[in-house]
Amino acid sequence: MSDSASGNPLRIGIAGLGTVGAGVLKLLTQQQDILAARAGVPLVVTAVSARNRQQDRGVEIDGYAWYDNCLDMAEADDVDVVVELIGGADGTAKVLVENAIAAGKHVVTANKALLAYHGQSIAESAEAKAVAVGFEAAVAGGVPVIKGLRDGLAANQVERIVAILNGTCNFVLGLMEEEEVSFEDAVREAQDVGFAEADPTTDIGGFDAAHKLSLLASIAFGTQVNLDAVLVKGIDSVAAEDIEAAKELGYRIKLIAVADRNGGHIIQRVHPALVPLEQPLAHVGGPGNSIVMQGDWVGTVEFGGPGAGEKPTASAVVADIVDIARGFQVPVFGTPAAQLTPAKSASEDNSLAPYYLRMELADKKGTASTMTGILAEHDISIETMIQKPEEDHELGANMPVIVVTYATRDTAIAKAIAEIEGAGILAGSPNVIRVESL
Amino acid sequence: MSDSASGNPLRIGIAGLGTVGAGVLKLLTQQQDILAARAGVPLVVTAVSARNRQQDRGVEIDGYAWYDNCLDMAEADDVDVVVELIGGADGTAKVLVENAIAAGKHVVTANKALLAYHGQSIAESAEAKAVAVGFEAAVAGGVPVIKGLRDGLAANQVERIVAILNGTCNFVLGLMEEEEVSFEDAVREAQDVGFAEADPTTDIGGFDAAHKLSLLASIAFGTQVNLDAVLVKGIDSVAAEDIEAAKELGYRIKLIAVADRNGGHIIQRVHPALVPLEQPLAHVGGPGNSIVMQGDWVGTVEFGGPGAGEKPTASAVVADIVDIARGFQVPVFGTPAAQLTPAKSASEDNSLAPYYLRMELADKKGTASTMTGILAEHDISIETMIQKPEEDHELGANMPVIVVTYATRDTAIAKAIAEIEGAGILAGSPNVIRVESL
Repeated sequence: MSDSASGNPLRIGIAGLGTVGAGVLKLLTQQQDILAARAGVPLVVTAVSARNRQQDRGVEIDGYAWYDNCLDMAEADDVDVVVELIGGADGTAKVLVENAIAAGKHVVTANKALLAYHGQSIAESAEAKAVAVGFEAAVAGGVPVIKGLRDGLAANQVERIVAILNGTCNFVLGLMEEEEVSFEDAVREAQDVGFAEADPTTDIGGFDAAHKLSLLASIAFGTQVNLDAVLVKGIDSVAAEDIEAAKELGYRIKLIAVADRNGGHIIQRVHPALVPLEQPLAHVGGPGNSIVMQGDWVGTVEFGGPGAGEKPTASAVVADIVDIARGFQVPVFGTPAAQLTPAKSASEDNSLAPYYLRMELADKKGTASTMTGILAEHDISIETMIQKPEEDHELGANMPVIVVTYATRDTAIAKAIAEIEGAGILAGSPNVIRVESL
Repeated sequence: MSDSASGNPLRIGIAGLGTVGAGVLKLLTQQQDILAARAGVPLVVTAVSARNRQQDRGVEIDGYAWYDNCLDMAEADDVDVVVELIGGADGTAKVLVENAIAAGKHVVTANKALLAYHGQSIAESAEAKAVAVGFEAAVAGGVPVIKGLRDGLAANQVERIVAILNGTCNFVLGLMEEEEVSFEDAVREAQDVGFAEADPTTDIGGFDAAHKLSLLASIAFGTQVNLDAVLVKGIDSVAAEDIEAAKELGYRIKLIAVADRNGGHIIQRVHPALVPLEQPLAHVGGPGNSIVMQGDWVGTVEFGGPGAGEKPTASAVVADIVDIARGFQVPVFGTPAAQLTPAKSASEDNSLAPYYLRMELADKKGTASTMTGILAEHDISIETMIQKPEEDHELGANMPVIVVTYATRDTAIAKAIAEIEGAGILAGSPNVIRVESL
């Protein structure tokens, strides 16, 4: 059923008036004429809700019906679309979305955590009720990658996605390189300029990127969203020495999110990686996002742009509202929820890649020979090895060594590293980072 | 009315079985299961047509009803969607599309020329008949930029688009740089490897990019497609010396397509430009396409990928078919045709930009002084000037000079150049190329 066909305004309730919610309200007001032309019907806000009615949000809310309890919006007769901008995987956001769907209302949300944990059940309910659930804003902010993947690449078996999906991590890693500061200092600076939260764990730990990746993977591969299948490693293990060594070797360290059709298994992983400087992903700056997708027919397609912020996120939320007004309704993850297959979580990623290893060899004879010998035993060949003591290096002090291997398997690296650690030739823990090309 | 709601297969007639048509047929066969899942109904080819039935196309066509005259497809009871892959702005392609629309059938086409010349009337007819006209494949091949702009950025006033839309020109310019060959040799080589047509005028002259740009501009600005409003200059004026000088100055020469909201006027132009090497557009290689779009809410978003070829183009055609099967139907250019405003063609582009000038100063005294004096009279400041004679330069021979100005207006440059030419200090015609940043 097309709302646009009816000619009636599309009536919108907005739950959550933080930065994004207030932005959506401003956007819908500022652009109402072009939106009505493009959507085919006026887009009218009929209800708003937030924790505190009095707070100054830089936008007038007196003209809209105020709901102290946003859950009442799900039952309101004059709301066609509930826009959920509360956030959180559970709690009010989840109840609101479920109730809105149950009441036959469309939903638009920017809530990646909610869908990463409950995407399958939400999709099933929405499809049973024939309502839309738009979540363009949940992945890559203003970049229309959900529509690009779900609609634009609908004719493809997607083979692989490699993406930068977390602006905070990208900004922090960029600061570490540009200002030659430690991870801790870079995080503090990012917090000062508003690119990192007071508690940055969700971003820095890779969990936010994992939420987003799990949604892309579902659309790409026709699998049920399965956050547990995502291998996650954050950027807190990246040291200033790694940033510097990567640069010297012709790479840049990025937090990447990869979804890969590896035989029958879908690999999903989020971790820091060395990206060759020739690749566009290496040049995504500041809080930018970029998504490289490989389809069997289209080849390689790239999308990039602002991954967060009031205005880009509001742009994505309102695009979803326009879709609904135009009567566009597809299964939440592109394929009907009932046909999505369980995402088998891979026991191991047996794809081939070079690895970067940074080790501190202990002050002993023959440590380099022992280390290279163990790599050789595991059929790991060395492409580059840099043993470069500090200028004030004293004879007999620990020696930093960087190795970049030829392509090998994660399992081989893991075994070799365990053996090297067991051989008592290292001072401190080695750092292992995968080298990733598209 | 949603075809998917009906549950019946979507019945497709394909007119034109060249590279792309045969590709569409192969894709629809190869991916029929995932397409049915994503589209909600089976996508079934019921009719095909081409000039020569016997030709080997690497795909079986015996199972489909053959039409000697593709126009009969427009009347066929068992065709819901006519896929027009014949090409050409007029002739059969136009009649087929018009007849199909008149008969209430949806249309999918890769035909940029047809829409650039007749987009407005086609949109009006299609909207009157409530049928869809999909043309994702007409712009940037496999890159889903039509959907990205029309749907993904639907909440934005688009301010500016800067794009590389012609793979042939990009390939030729790339060859000129990499192999240090002349324009003519590069075109010949591009023809040999299939990246340029036997008659390459449409591509090389910038006309193909102009067709595509006019379609993007209509969606972006809510204006009627107006090919006459596009200022077009091809790459045949670019010499090996320009490629080399640009490189030395930190730029790369690209054929760019720009649509700009310049006050009340929409500027549309296609021409070679010096793009700074820091900009992603400078790094679009081979036959690739890239589109950078600036919206008032989203900020800057980039799309890139393969701009031509059987498989990427088929991917885009079939994505449009999936849209139709899903019941997604929007105005052809995003805004209802009746509300599109005439695109006022700008009498002049008064935006500011630096310009690159390559001149051959004649063997006379004071020529450089005269030239720089004329620039100064027109308030044009010089940022860089390179006067670098060939190694075998003889005293008194003509002297090549390259100037890059500070930002100025096209009109000022045009007047200054006319005056310099009139002053009799040049041997040969100067070459003027705009420097373009996003």
